[in-house]
Amino acid sequence: MQILVTNDDGINAIGIRKLAESLKKIGKVTVVAPDRQRSAIGHAITLHKPLRVDRFEFNDIEIDAWSINGTPSDCVKIAVESILEKKPDVVVSGINDGPNLGTDVLYSGTVSAAIEGAIHNIPSIAISAVGSKEKINYEGAKIYSCKLVKSIIEKDIPNNIIFNINIPALYIEKIKGIKVTELGIRKYKNNYIKRKDPMGKSYYWLAGKLIEIENNKESDVMATESGYISITPLHFNLTNYDFLDEMKNWEL
Amino acid sequence: MQILVTNDDGINAIGIRKLAESLKKIGKVTVVAPDRQRSAIGHAITLHKPLRVDRFEFNDIEIDAWSINGTPSDCVKIAVESILEKKPDVVVSGINDGPNLGTDVLYSGTVSAAIEGAIHNIPSIAISAVGSKEKINYEGAKIYSCKLVKSIIEKDIPNNIIFNINIPALYIEKIKGIKVTELGIRKYKNNYIKRKDPMGKSYYWLAGKLIEIENNKESDVMATESGYISITPLHFNLTNYDFLDEMKNWEL
Amino acid sequence: MQILVTNDDGINAIGIRKLAESLKKIGKVTVVAPDRQRSAIGHAITLHKPLRVDRFEFNDIEIDAWSINGTPSDCVKIAVESILEKKPDVVVSGINDGPNLGTDVLYSGTVSAAIEGAIHNIPSIAISAVGSKEKINYEGAKIYSCKLVKSIIEKDIPNNIIFNINIPALYIEKIKGIKVTELGIRKYKNNYIKRKDPMGKSYYWLAGKLIEIENNKESDVMATESGYISITPLHFNLTNYDFLDEMKNWEL
Amino acid sequence: MQILVTNDDGINAIGIRKLAESLKKIGKVTVVAPDRQRSAIGHAITLHKPLRVDRFEFNDIEIDAWSINGTPSDCVKIAVESILEKKPDVVVSGINDGPNLGTDVLYSGTVSAAIEGAIHNIPSIAISAVGSKEKINYEGAKIYSCKLVKSIIEKDIPNNIIFNINIPALYIEKIKGIKVTELGIRKYKNNYIKRKDPMGKSYYWLAGKLIEIENNKESDVMATESGYISITPLHFNLTNYDFLDEMKNWEL
Repeated sequence: MQILVTNDDGINAIGIRKLAESLKKIGKVTVVAPDRQRSAIGHAITLHKPLRVDRFEFNDIEIDAWSINGTPSDCVKIAVESILEKKPDVVVSGINDGPNLGTDVLYSGTVSAAIEGAIHNIPSIAISAVGSKEKINYEGAKIYSCKLVKSIIEKDIPNNIIFNINIPALYIEKIKGIKVTELGIRKYKNNYIKRKDPMGKSYYWLAGKLIEIENNKESDVMATESGYISITPLHFNLTNYDFLDEMKNWEL
Repeated sequence: MQILVTNDDGINAIGIRKLAESLKKIGKVTVVAPDRQRSAIGHAITLHKPLRVDRFEFNDIEIDAWSINGTPSDCVKIAVESILEKKPDVVVSGINDGPNLGTDVLYSGTVSAAIEGAIHNIPSIAISAVGSKEKINYEGAKIYSCKLVKSIIEKDIPNNIIFNINIPALYIEKIKGIKVTELGIRKYKNNYIKRKDPMGKSYYWLAGKLIEIENNKESDVMATESGYISITPLHFNLTNYDFLDEMKNWEL
Repeated sequence: MQILVTNDDGINAIGIRKLAESLKKIGKVTVVAPDRQRSAIGHAITLHKPLRVDRFEFNDIEIDAWSINGTPSDCVKIAVESILEKKPDVVVSGINDGPNLGTDVLYSGTVSAAIEGAIHNIPSIAISAVGSKEKINYEGAKIYSCKLVKSIIEKDIPNNIIFNINIPALYIEKIKGIKVTELGIRKYKNNYIKRKDPMGKSYYWLAGKLIEIENNKESDVMATESGYISITPLHFNLTNYDFLDEMKNWEL
Repeated sequence: MQILVTNDDGINAIGIRKLAESLKKIGKVTVVAPDRQRSAIGHAITLHKPLRVDRFEFNDIEIDAWSINGTPSDCVKIAVESILEKKPDVVVSGINDGPNLGTDVLYSGTVSAAIEGAIHNIPSIAISAVGSKEKINYEGAKIYSCKLVKSIIEKDIPNNIIFNINIPALYIEKIKGIKVTELGIRKYKNNYIKRKDPMGKSYYWLAGKLIEIENNKESDVMATESGYISITPLHFNLTNYDFLDEMKNWEL
């Protein structure tokens, strides 16, 4: 099995190395990832400048790897179109340092890389570790990444589906199980801090503080809060079909 | 009516000025837009650096305006959270220089700005001019922008819906009418050109050539190709509910 | 006389417009300047990515102008090599918003643009307005810019000399006169503020506070502090000839 | 001896690792370098955004190291002001991948880092390997780097002097010796290639082709062309004292 691995934290992040190591057991892994942090980049792609594709060496694991001065979506595009000899059997993006839950998946580079895979008709999986930034524990996430990728790929998956997996950043024995979920809601308040820089000029810096919201029991937010791994199937068709019918009666 | 106007081509683009001028007739317009080209930026937001908010003067129209060194989504976020005194009644993003149709809306900064508005529970509209880059004609688009924004806002619109409008870049008498559509499909081939820079180092540059695909008659792609204005209602919930039920039977 | 005007504050800055307007009286002005703020960029040039050259329109003055997504040195290089039909008779860079005095000229994009002109054997002049950022007054600077450029160009100037002019940001009647000076010394202390960003990650921000140093009476620092315009002739040969002879006796 | 090592090719470049390894023999080495390629950046410093300082691990050598998202000058400034407990005894910048000779030192990030050291009254040395980019050989450069740094530091060096060293990229037995030199002249022609990007928009890319010029025998250019190591003492006082006296007689 050919596995394309990418992420949005950059090729030097711990999470992608854990993921690549873990997936080596079940297939031939190729890493193509951004040369640096690209989180919250959403589905950005690079149109207006050329991209550089450089060979990358992980120091202690033998894996074909390239770093690119682009976004996660750029990486999947270039990997599929220009680097890999044949289409990979699966795209796996992660392990992200932090959750990608609910409304926040719209901003997520990790998830967007998986969406890009699905656009190319490749089964695609995004994996994130849900924990406090200070001391993220990838042990459980690493073991479950391999197990879940294997398990999902063996199913009969229709085209254009993305699996968004969030794994509590805990030791494996503390993880309670797996839940299939829908996206919950994430809201923030007091979004911008306004300060002055050392030259006296104002700036704004995003400082979203999560608001506690009662989330649906079936949501990814609730599943991970209760210590479960959350798997949410995603699509990327933004047409609002429910409203489409009503609109057809509109006079415009 | 308070109208927030933004775009992804940058505050110096012709399209945003046409839009602002046009909407002045129906409300109080405030422009908050990126300081430069940010197309194909998708739903990126800026987390890792501070943002600058600068007063901007259009030379011949009197409109409150700010430019920001961020993405379209950043602009809507900051405008709503920190610049405007009260929530605007509508967010209008555009007029984009080129189409935002079908699969491509995922990459669109224009559409993402409107999605950001909808996340804040503000009715939001993305407007793009569909034409050849060389000599885009904004006349029809300008007149219809005002007409359609007014008409949509007067309806009873549920929360979290975005209207994605694509207007042929033609004189108004050449536009055949308005169609309510769903997103079509856009596929590209030979995506990357590989060349050497003057120092002899390789680079890749995205060069997507659109593949002709038979699109659904109901699609935005077909509507605009036939000379109609396309309006597609969008949502931003990526949960694949259809597949969710099947997945609940999976053994993982 | 063909005059090339550039700066490092970007083509939208007030200073460059004042300068261009002022120099129109004595020659044919062409503006080629960075598309945005590039201060403290020193003599950087852009090697690893392509540059975009876009036509720019000043709204109320008729001047040929281009904006470039590069540094001040890039602008002079491209203007001379690829935009202008013939070599300009003089390169004038400014009017910078703030002083370029003493040691600080090493970091100055304004001065570097003039150095780039001198490298091309074109007489080159850097002009800066010395005042508090809050309410810089360009009136005196604008009038003297024209007067001094005219006066300098009429002299017999050897190749490879740059004139670094600092003008107090005052009304013209408050300016006491002109002094020919040498570069003084500028020292800063407590150079970096260390803070945490909204995500709790540390960052450093340059916050140089000028140390009061007793400067030579002949220095540019002293001249401007006393209300005089300072003109310093600069060269760009960094060889330390004085020490070269001593070093020749070294055993290495 | 405390040695601060930096460069402009970025902390992942081969040259800086060779240099750090080599200098470990004669002192305590700390590496503080840009997180990525910053060549041709000149003396740029970062004023308008915060800088990130991250711990960096070389995989097989034990050296204290930090990477910074800034320029070479930023790295020296932060290292001296905020990272190192006491002022280093010497700043060594390199080993640059390619020459820094003649006029080109003005653009060099490698040399500017050394100038920044000298501004802080620290003896400072820039080291570059002169060879074809394809297969740069650092062996001779590595051995001589250590030897020359040691030899220079033992001399009695006045403040504010920078040593600019260019070493042929050859095996050590092919290097003919050491010459104390002055900066030569480097001129380029046909500086910009103009092309169209895949969207049909023009761009310019710097493509300087070196012009053969008869250089002074005493120049760094000639020394390295003949297989010698070149050492040039530099200063950073740009005042043109020779011309200053003449100018004092000018009527302005």
